[in-house]
Amino acid sequence: MVNKIGIDIGGTSIRAALISDGSIISFKKEATPKTPDEGTAVVHRFIREWLHETDSPVGIAAPGPLDTKTGIFLDPPNLPGWHGFQLKQKCEKLFGRECIVENDANAAAVAEYTFGAGVKADSMVYVTISTGVGAGIIAGGCLISGAFGNAGEVGNLIIADEGPVQPGLNQGSWESLASGTALGKMAEERLQLSGGAQELFKKIEDGSLEAEAVFAAWIDYTARGLANLVHTSDPEMIVLGGGVMNAADIILPRLEEALQRKVYQSAAGKIQLREAELGDYTGVIGAAELNAIKRL
Amino acid sequence: MVNKIGIDIGGTSIRAALISDGSIISFKKEATPKTPDEGTAVVHRFIREWLHETDSPVGIAAPGPLDTKTGIFLDPPNLPGWHGFQLKQKCEKLFGRECIVENDANAAAVAEYTFGAGVKADSMVYVTISTGVGAGIIAGGCLISGAFGNAGEVGNLIIADEGPVQPGLNQGSWESLASGTALGKMAEERLQLSGGAQELFKKIEDGSLEAEAVFAAWIDYTARGLANLVHTSDPEMIVLGGGVMNAADIILPRLEEALQRKVYQSAAGKIQLREAELGDYTGVIGAAELNAIKRL
Repeated sequence: MVNKIGIDIGGTSIRAALISDGSIISFKKEATPKTPDEGTAVVHRFIREWLHETDSPVGIAAPGPLDTKTGIFLDPPNLPGWHGFQLKQKCEKLFGRECIVENDANAAAVAEYTFGAGVKADSMVYVTISTGVGAGIIAGGCLISGAFGNAGEVGNLIIADEGPVQPGLNQGSWESLASGTALGKMAEERLQLSGGAQELFKKIEDGSLEAEAVFAAWIDYTARGLANLVHTSDPEMIVLGGGVMNAADIILPRLEEALQRKVYQSAAGKIQLREAELGDYTGVIGAAELNAIKRL
Repeated sequence: MVNKIGIDIGGTSIRAALISDGSIISFKKEATPKTPDEGTAVVHRFIREWLHETDSPVGIAAPGPLDTKTGIFLDPPNLPGWHGFQLKQKCEKLFGRECIVENDANAAAVAEYTFGAGVKADSMVYVTISTGVGAGIIAGGCLISGAFGNAGEVGNLIIADEGPVQPGLNQGSWESLASGTALGKMAEERLQLSGGAQELFKKIEDGSLEAEAVFAAWIDYTARGLANLVHTSDPEMIVLGGGVMNAADIILPRLEEALQRKVYQSAAGKIQLREAELGDYTGVIGAAELNAIKRL
């Protein structure tokens, strides 16, 4: 058993863990500071003592788009103060060790593939739906990392003609139409629900046809995004994570049915839709495993 | 130098070639018969004498969706009489040799990557636009073949809310909105041009603003499809082939400009758009090289 260190830098929180074969030995979490220098200082404080417990490279998951080769932040919408920051270089200097930097959704895909819902799949797509929408693509046991940090940046997929305008995203993009945030806004605007997506789910459980109709539009957009992943990467399994999956019981059956109608007849019924299993730890576990997967 | 045999079964023609290091030694072409038994008989007649000139497996490119592992045709819209046909099994019996079966656009991607426009790229997407729209994705030197024969089946990508209804395709799909055929129809319906896409290109060259406006809509849809490929696979190069590329001089600059506006700012200007180089031979060359590339 080899100890590994995984770091997950998110728009809201920074997480770090010492991990052994997918099990968390120690875990730390703190609000993400505004500047990258403060952020890397937090990370260094988190992991300093763990560096004596392993020789493995340190894995770091961070919001994309991100140049995974140079480890430089590009223009991630959720970390505006960090644009252009040389994350890999800075961390390697601080830690005195090789760091492997990867897009957060890609790292989560590695985690679910190695220890979570996807352990038996050979090709798998992980999709996270919460504030934003992102994905990580595993093909034949390799992570599709991409040439310029845009592989799996599916929030920007164009799935419709129109939609809310959001900075840095295409109009009609998956994220602008069918993120968790977008669902909350739909509930608010169309049904005047102040409790957002959660209240909408409650109404659906109570049998409200109005709520069901609003939700059907969101399901349709989400299925468009998933179908587009099927018609590019053709995974045998799609693993869904992110905040909205708290309502997995409501989402999965409807989404499965909608997806089947948008893929070739020969593929319908073959693609498994699963709920992610690793929760809050997905990012750090995936980051720690980055040195164990081939990245293309 | 090893001789190889490549076969390309298309909706219109069957092609076969004896190939040495990407160079055609002998080439044969004939109209595709209606039944798969007649088709495989044509192929067998084509290659029978070549089988003595090489020990390599025979590569076969065929229209998708196609189960590349079992080599069984699924439901390819362009070969209706062939649905469910066990191509690999039948050919292996006829030829007495291993056959490798792959989606035609995937095989074309292998050809352009190995000997054509993509020789210097590490990750590349080949997109063919003619009667239909299809793609083949190369990531880190591997072909993304997929779990169920749908990898690169980008004609079915949903890029808009509405569009012409076509059997077997999603509404708002790339192929229904922006194939070569779709461009011809747009020219006919909106400008009453009887000469289809070719007459439209002629009018654009003559400076017609009306023609330019119609073409702009097609370019926008095509750029949506390419942007969706960028945000899933993140290639460093996109190689464009198929019938419409006879007008590459008109298409490429407009498409490049439209694509830049649909990708993350950090990616704009980095993705190379290139014209395919191998023309009529792309399918057979790619088929022949299938034994030399790792398929995921």
